[in-house]
Amino acid sequence: MPSPATPGRAGTPSPPGQATSLPGWRASHWFNTPTPVELGDLRGRVVLVHAFQMLCPACVSHGLPQALRVHEAFQGEAVTVIGLHTVFEHHEVMGSQALQAFIQEYRLPFPIGIDQAAEAGPLPVTMAQWGLNGTPSVVLFDRQGRARLHRFGVVDDLVLGAAIGQLLAERTPVAASVSLDRVGTGTARPACDDEGCVSR
Amino acid sequence: MPSPATPGRAGTPSPPGQATSLPGWRASHWFNTPTPVELGDLRGRVVLVHAFQMLCPACVSHGLPQALRVHEAFQGEAVTVIGLHTVFEHHEVMGSQALQAFIQEYRLPFPIGIDQAAEAGPLPVTMAQWGLNGTPSVVLFDRQGRARLHRFGVVDDLVLGAAIGQLLAERTPVAASVSLDRVGTGTARPACDDEGCVSR
Amino acid sequence: MPSPATPGRAGTPSPPGQATSLPGWRASHWFNTPTPVELGDLRGRVVLVHAFQMLCPACVSHGLPQALRVHEAFQGEAVTVIGLHTVFEHHEVMGSQALQAFIQEYRLPFPIGIDQAAEAGPLPVTMAQWGLNGTPSVVLFDRQGRARLHRFGVVDDLVLGAAIGQLLAERTPVAASVSLDRVGTGTARPACDDEGCVSR
Amino acid sequence: MPSPATPGRAGTPSPPGQATSLPGWRASHWFNTPTPVELGDLRGRVVLVHAFQMLCPACVSHGLPQALRVHEAFQGEAVTVIGLHTVFEHHEVMGSQALQAFIQEYRLPFPIGIDQAAEAGPLPVTMAQWGLNGTPSVVLFDRQGRARLHRFGVVDDLVLGAAIGQLLAERTPVAASVSLDRVGTGTARPACDDEGCVSR
Repeated sequence: MPSPATPGRAGTPSPPGQATSLPGWRASHWFNTPTPVELGDLRGRVVLVHAFQMLCPACVSHGLPQALRVHEAFQGEAVTVIGLHTVFEHHEVMGSQALQAFIQEYRLPFPIGIDQAAEAGPLPVTMAQWGLNGTPSVVLFDRQGRARLHRFGVVDDLVLGAAIGQLLAERTPVAASVSLDRVGTGTARPACDDEGCVSR
Repeated sequence: MPSPATPGRAGTPSPPGQATSLPGWRASHWFNTPTPVELGDLRGRVVLVHAFQMLCPACVSHGLPQALRVHEAFQGEAVTVIGLHTVFEHHEVMGSQALQAFIQEYRLPFPIGIDQAAEAGPLPVTMAQWGLNGTPSVVLFDRQGRARLHRFGVVDDLVLGAAIGQLLAERTPVAASVSLDRVGTGTARPACDDEGCVSR
Repeated sequence: MPSPATPGRAGTPSPPGQATSLPGWRASHWFNTPTPVELGDLRGRVVLVHAFQMLCPACVSHGLPQALRVHEAFQGEAVTVIGLHTVFEHHEVMGSQALQAFIQEYRLPFPIGIDQAAEAGPLPVTMAQWGLNGTPSVVLFDRQGRARLHRFGVVDDLVLGAAIGQLLAERTPVAASVSLDRVGTGTARPACDDEGCVSR
Repeated sequence: MPSPATPGRAGTPSPPGQATSLPGWRASHWFNTPTPVELGDLRGRVVLVHAFQMLCPACVSHGLPQALRVHEAFQGEAVTVIGLHTVFEHHEVMGSQALQAFIQEYRLPFPIGIDQAAEAGPLPVTMAQWGLNGTPSVVLFDRQGRARLHRFGVVDDLVLGAAIGQLLAERTPVAASVSLDRVGTGTARPACDDEGCVSR
């Protein structure tokens, strides 16, 4: 297993050869895109997935503004920003209609998918498969579609920028097994705080 | 009619003698208080009413944090902060249950009432009676229960602090007719922007 | 002796009757004014004196921007903002010529005086007479020329605004002995930190 | 000549093969290092040079805090941050002694050199040789010692992070002529404003 990047240090993506496979997202509905967006359609591009909940304070104050800054800063570069609404609490008030109003009022411009509800349990499918600790989380896929960085909580712009820059610099295909570099706080926390919302 | 304070200048409360009567708020439900809060129960105190919508970006980024700062800065002073959920759009996704989740996640500590829905039309009762232009809005009542300042949009902390300080300094009862100093942007605007959400 | 306002709570000015006399400032040189500014010339106005050093980080990041905000927010009100360069360290590099360049580059618009150097010792005359703990400090004089609030370190805009508003509301002359409400951190600190620079 | 990156877009470093030679810095005095720091000694590392003046407001509010963030975010990575005091105005009050007090009060931890004064004219030697437009400016050298990014004014953290990440990803030596990607505002501006100080 790859050694995870130390939180607080520069968010170096894991080496390509130290990765294990991670499936693409599973979305039941999309906004801001005429057709569903699939990871497989984005080969050759660096993909930032921002997992959020519309009632998660740190998502609204930090995560989504950062996703928007990435979307704007890398216009014209091979970077795609995707929002993923990974609802794991207050399901009854964060449905599709509520999210639509939220996206409209906050004027979010990038494609946003609703993480597929699980048949049982509060965690949606992608969130469970990716092992996300809560919201906000960012997952960064390289040009080959491999998950290379995985962060829960507030991530520094310099650190996220460096990870994106490093993945942009990988221009040649690399044959490798795929892995996920999980970087989280690791400590159990109750509900939401300044850093984000934890799924228990 | 009193000359309204010029936006951008210090938010001087209107003189006590230049006021006309404004009724108290009408709330259909309360959070963070065991019993409904009435303006008449708060005589002797300066009352800041922060009118907001949970999906109004400027309320979340500016208005509510400011209301929280006022609540904390004037602990021990004769100042009461009240939130008023004045929903005039997206009614179907900003109901009581959604607001409850919002208050819980954002950890808002002060009493918050839901502005009474009107029998017809999108504007709730208090919002219509007070002539609020949109959200966020602040209305400041003096120790006599008279509305003395009325602002739509983002208000500077220095300006709001000065208005509160001025009303705190009025320690003796003043007999006067009551009036409302309406200060808004005055320009028609579409839906929500950085300054707030406008009701049309 | 008046009970000092508790740091962190609203910065209530001391009652007029609980004050002892504080002399006006002593400046050896002025910028941004054709003639020296004297406290006695400002009767009827609330006067905010911002004591700073040009190489004090908290003065540059917090104090001076706040003084500028006060200057701008209360344009047209009976409020005067005065800067006082109270150099108590690094005297050799914070002289008149250096301050002039600083004022020019930072585009400070309000009158700024250089606190009179003492005949002996590092503390300038006004700083010593007023008992300032360091920089940044604010001293607030009422319309009668009495020092009513005295703060060292970073002061919240709401708190400072409330104190100004309260003093603005005192429109009638009050006969009283004058006093100073000293509010400082009280703890010994080395040189400069995020809160300011301490004189030992 | 290489096409310069468009301001506002991601700050992509220029391709290695499109560079022309840029000499190392020329410093007359150093702080925070026992011996002078030479570009040639830093082969294998990405080097960020932050050119500043201690009385340049945008350097103090934006540039130096960003340099400090880079210094801290990339601890343990092959990144070195260097400050360069490129005084082109107010020379008489920004000398070595003044800078020393500034560095002490602002607690800057990385090596800072004083750009060598020119025999004639206000511009110091390195600033002139590198063609810097003013302060703050950042120049980014790759692991081979080639200048790859050149920015005047406020640079976004995401953009700077991406450029650093991209240069960190270049782990193998690349034989190439060296060039400088100049990115400035291009418009003539008077003295200092929010974006920085311009040398005329």
